Amino acid sequence: MTDMVSLTKLRRIATPKGAVLHCLKATDAGFAGFGEAYFSVVLAAETKGWKKHNRMTLNLAVPSGAVRFVVRASKPPHGIVVDAVLSPDSDETYQRLTVPPGFWVAFRGVGAGESIVVNIASIPHDPQEADVLDLSAFPIPD
Amino acid sequence: MTDMVSLTKLRRIATPKGAVLHCLKATDAGFAGFGEAYFSVVLAAETKGWKKHNRMTLNLAVPSGAVRFVVRASKPPHGIVVDAVLSPDSDETYQRLTVPPGFWVAFRGVGAGESIVVNIASIPHDPQEADVLDLSAFPIPD
Repeated sequence: MTDMVSLTKLRRIATPKGAVLHCLKATDAGFAGFGEAYFSVVLAAETKGWKKHNRMTLNLAVPSGAVRFVVRASKPPHGIVVDAVLSPDSDETYQRLTVPPGFWVAFRGVGAGESIVVNIASIPHDPQEADVLDLSAFPIPD
Repeated sequence: MTDMVSLTKLRRIATPKGAVLHCLKATDAGFAGFGEAYFSVVLAAETKGWKKHNRMTLNLAVPSGAVRFVVRASKPPHGIVVDAVLSPDSDETYQRLTVPPGFWVAFRGVGAGESIVVNIASIPHDPQEADVLDLSAFPIPD
């Protein structure tokens, strides 16, 4: 368990029939419990956010496509903590993003077509524990 | 927790920026603990298998592409327990496949290009707990 936003490189094991891609083990430092796993599809050039979870730790990976994540601190001036593209296309970009409670998160599809985000969430979905702001609330740098 | 192979329809929540797709909650009947989440990519027309886990419960979903799963009983005549295509393309096919220990599993990419299987596994990967047979050991019906 952690209170830091972190990026962790993940293993990709190539096979002729298709790769095996690691995501999260219960013994990993970023693991904060299992409440729910779900996928968020994001279309090319679309941006989802801003959302701030107040109790959920997110463990995010991208098994298909490419997604840019921007994470901002909860307190003014809401500095950018992470701005990174996750994708399974290279060892450099195949990473897990761990976000403990209390950070603003937005993400944009930067692959062609649909990109897939998985969240191994520490608690089940609960709309009461998340705050939402319009995308225009904070800029996403070019 | 369960000792039965089961298919469970999952919710797809459409949004203009891309759908949210349910996968597994800790409170679901098929949940058997969280050991590891990983992805298995399967290319079109390729088949991975046969593998039988002796301690792991698999919770399988397909967030991208389309994958045919064939599950066979461990004891002769190794009857087919499930033969189903999973894909996020329709409410009918967007399902979770739960496989408790002791069944032979194979799966084939039946979408175009890469299809993605996620396994929310009840224990971390342990090559000692799984048996493997050549694909030719059991037929996959046409």
